[in-house]
Amino acid sequence: MKWNMPPEEFRRYGHRIIDWIADYLEHIRDYPVLARLEPGELAARLPARAPEEGEPMEAILDDFERQILPAVTHWNHPRFHAYFSVSASPPGILAEALIAALNMNGMLWKTSPASTELEQVTLGWLRDWLGLPERFFGVIHDTASINAVHAIAAARFRIDPEVRSRGHAQPLTLYTSEFAHSSIEKGAMVLGIGLDNVRKIGVDEAWRMRVDLLEQAIRRDLAEGRKPFCVCATVGTTAVTSVDPVPEIASVAERYGLWLHVDAAYGGAAAVAEEFRWVLAGAERADSLVVNPHKWLFTPLDLSVLYTAHPDLLRRTFSVVPEYLRTAEDSRVVNLMDFGIPLGRRFRALKLWFIMRYFGRKAVAEIIRRHIRWAQEFAGRLLADGRFELAAPAPLSVVCFRLKGSDEDNRRLLEAVNASGRAYLSHTVLDGRYVIRFAVGHISTTEEDIDSAWQTISEEADRLGA
Amino acid sequence: MKWNMPPEEFRRYGHRIIDWIADYLEHIRDYPVLARLEPGELAARLPARAPEEGEPMEAILDDFERQILPAVTHWNHPRFHAYFSVSASPPGILAEALIAALNMNGMLWKTSPASTELEQVTLGWLRDWLGLPERFFGVIHDTASINAVHAIAAARFRIDPEVRSRGHAQPLTLYTSEFAHSSIEKGAMVLGIGLDNVRKIGVDEAWRMRVDLLEQAIRRDLAEGRKPFCVCATVGTTAVTSVDPVPEIASVAERYGLWLHVDAAYGGAAAVAEEFRWVLAGAERADSLVVNPHKWLFTPLDLSVLYTAHPDLLRRTFSVVPEYLRTAEDSRVVNLMDFGIPLGRRFRALKLWFIMRYFGRKAVAEIIRRHIRWAQEFAGRLLADGRFELAAPAPLSVVCFRLKGSDEDNRRLLEAVNASGRAYLSHTVLDGRYVIRFAVGHISTTEEDIDSAWQTISEEADRLGA
Repeated sequence: MKWNMPPEEFRRYGHRIIDWIADYLEHIRDYPVLARLEPGELAARLPARAPEEGEPMEAILDDFERQILPAVTHWNHPRFHAYFSVSASPPGILAEALIAALNMNGMLWKTSPASTELEQVTLGWLRDWLGLPERFFGVIHDTASINAVHAIAAARFRIDPEVRSRGHAQPLTLYTSEFAHSSIEKGAMVLGIGLDNVRKIGVDEAWRMRVDLLEQAIRRDLAEGRKPFCVCATVGTTAVTSVDPVPEIASVAERYGLWLHVDAAYGGAAAVAEEFRWVLAGAERADSLVVNPHKWLFTPLDLSVLYTAHPDLLRRTFSVVPEYLRTAEDSRVVNLMDFGIPLGRRFRALKLWFIMRYFGRKAVAEIIRRHIRWAQEFAGRLLADGRFELAAPAPLSVVCFRLKGSDEDNRRLLEAVNASGRAYLSHTVLDGRYVIRFAVGHISTTEEDIDSAWQTISEEADRLGA
Repeated sequence: MKWNMPPEEFRRYGHRIIDWIADYLEHIRDYPVLARLEPGELAARLPARAPEEGEPMEAILDDFERQILPAVTHWNHPRFHAYFSVSASPPGILAEALIAALNMNGMLWKTSPASTELEQVTLGWLRDWLGLPERFFGVIHDTASINAVHAIAAARFRIDPEVRSRGHAQPLTLYTSEFAHSSIEKGAMVLGIGLDNVRKIGVDEAWRMRVDLLEQAIRRDLAEGRKPFCVCATVGTTAVTSVDPVPEIASVAERYGLWLHVDAAYGGAAAVAEEFRWVLAGAERADSLVVNPHKWLFTPLDLSVLYTAHPDLLRRTFSVVPEYLRTAEDSRVVNLMDFGIPLGRRFRALKLWFIMRYFGRKAVAEIIRRHIRWAQEFAGRLLADGRFELAAPAPLSVVCFRLKGSDEDNRRLLEAVNASGRAYLSHTVLDGRYVIRFAVGHISTTEEDIDSAWQTISEEADRLGA
């Protein structure tokens, strides 16, 4: 009977796993980026029931390598260019081991002073790196989707404090662009606002929200007796990384008394580099803003930051304190459970602290700057090659392009590139046309990786007769 | 300029961190369980700004030990007896390092076949350990609070599918006991149902929901034109670990067409031991059920499981699929993002797989059995000692007790025990009286730890003149 794992066994397998990770990160280019297997293949290979008797770590690690690994799509691969390219940097991985070992729950200050205070300190540091105002209060949740729910809920509470007790009252309307992330719609749906009350505002030729259409929509809703309460602007849309005109949107929000939420989950990180600080212009007028260190700040999934100019409103939106969670310190401290839905809170701030200290601001800025430069150069190559066209401007580190040809040609090109295992790209649809997305953002990506992706794309295009 | 951490440096500091964790777990009793510092003390010691230039790992790890560690309340301590006693077991810690290194995002099957399929496999294993029906479909989110939001949202969608588009319509009513976890109320509040529409049903002498009062409340709401839609039963309430009469509640739910959600976040784990399988009696009739492996199944925070008998309803409640997240495999696979709010999903299933395989069912059952036995013995000791009284039955591994004396005496006793650093207990209020809670549940807790806690309590009671 195993009552626990003996310390020496932990040490032995811990060293082995660290060595495995070091080798994995060093030789990761040997793996195909995209997993090559059929749906259900892994599940069919695994036993239908867990063992009655414990098994040796040796067997578990063997199965990890033989069974799990071939079913992994390698997000931590420098040639992962799909969606947004994200990284678990080595200092972040090391911090995750410590986070797990401490297993601290940051629900209350008392139950985890280190977690609560380090979260406030690191989010102050990040606020400074992004040039956001000091009055912004930050809190960490798992994902931008969950943070969107929090932001929209706070916006609703501001216009209707009775919502806590009475429930949602119709009809409140929310505004965002056609190119906003689906989590804004999902958030409004979950909160009981309803998709019919989400206005997806049209965009200009560069896929940025049109402020004139925003104002028209607000006026129409007011005229028809609805209550506009919130507008969500995006800094770096998922499809094309367009940056909404936040200063103009802020003016409209102020004119009509709307809560301004800025979804800078991906794009916000660019502001760490001085010359890209423009992406957050106007964000200082936001009521809330989300940025995801697990996207472009080299932090292992998950760590999404919600900033708000109204911490007291956020607290009043969510706080429910049962007797068993009261502490003698309550009046003197921040209890982070009061600012959101989850009660359990991992010590996520530790990984951000490791990463910000290990790299420092200058290196983070330089890495981001390089990613953007490489994306621009990649776009230049596409343009110089007669077979391709750009499908949208590429203001940051994602390039949307297509073969001059049919949607089917482009679909086949994407599938061929991904099947090669040498790169993984994703797609979107713009103006009804199928478009390929090439995202740069992994900390280990090199110019050679970008060259390699270009070669693969070019060769596969040749093969398709383009 | 640091572009990344070199592999050899990762290896060196990785080994050092593994050794540190091994020492930490082995000598953890040397630390006071509860952090000893004043609010703001850690934050004041840390720099107000992050460094411009990167710092050596040496400095970061030194500060971790000198600054962070003294501010840690040690949740992974065998003498942590507050709230629920939880554990990050060694195989779970090792798995966390791998989860971070792979950094896989389980949003779509294609983006992480290993994550999607292992999640379904391990949740099938767990379902089997708990004796739940095979038709239950499981999905992992961070916390029981977030899972409660999902369950209640699905319940609302079932009675009102228009909620997705139209938004929440009044008045839907939800039922739970006075002793349900605060996350049920918070969930209803967030979803726009409103606290006024949450009926907190009274309890019997053992703090279990009274089914007669439940039925009365439903009838009253029906008579007054409201729509009862959901009842949440609790298996192991946070305050006293009472187990609601789920079979009788299920019958009422069926009679009135209510969605039955069972919150077994803590108590469900007891069902792994055959003689405690009674805690989940009736749960096979639930529409949804939550159990938290990060509570009593030795899994590092966070990993909460939501089971539902209606996966298709759950999917239809939450699914919003933008073009850029469509894949060729969509019709043949489960894309877990469709079953909830978060898009980003860590590869959490890996840690549950490590733990279930490493220990096996028999050892897990035996450890849980031992925790319950020790809690019962502790209750016996309290009763045998003339100074104390039990404040509630202790059906599982938590004992609620008080000094025979004033609330102030009990508050002073709790504070003295916690200040000793030798144990950490928490409190609640029952029938208006201050009550001390003693929770057993850490994988490394021994009989000597329980003895030590008892000695500390007894000595501090002496010192208070009890």
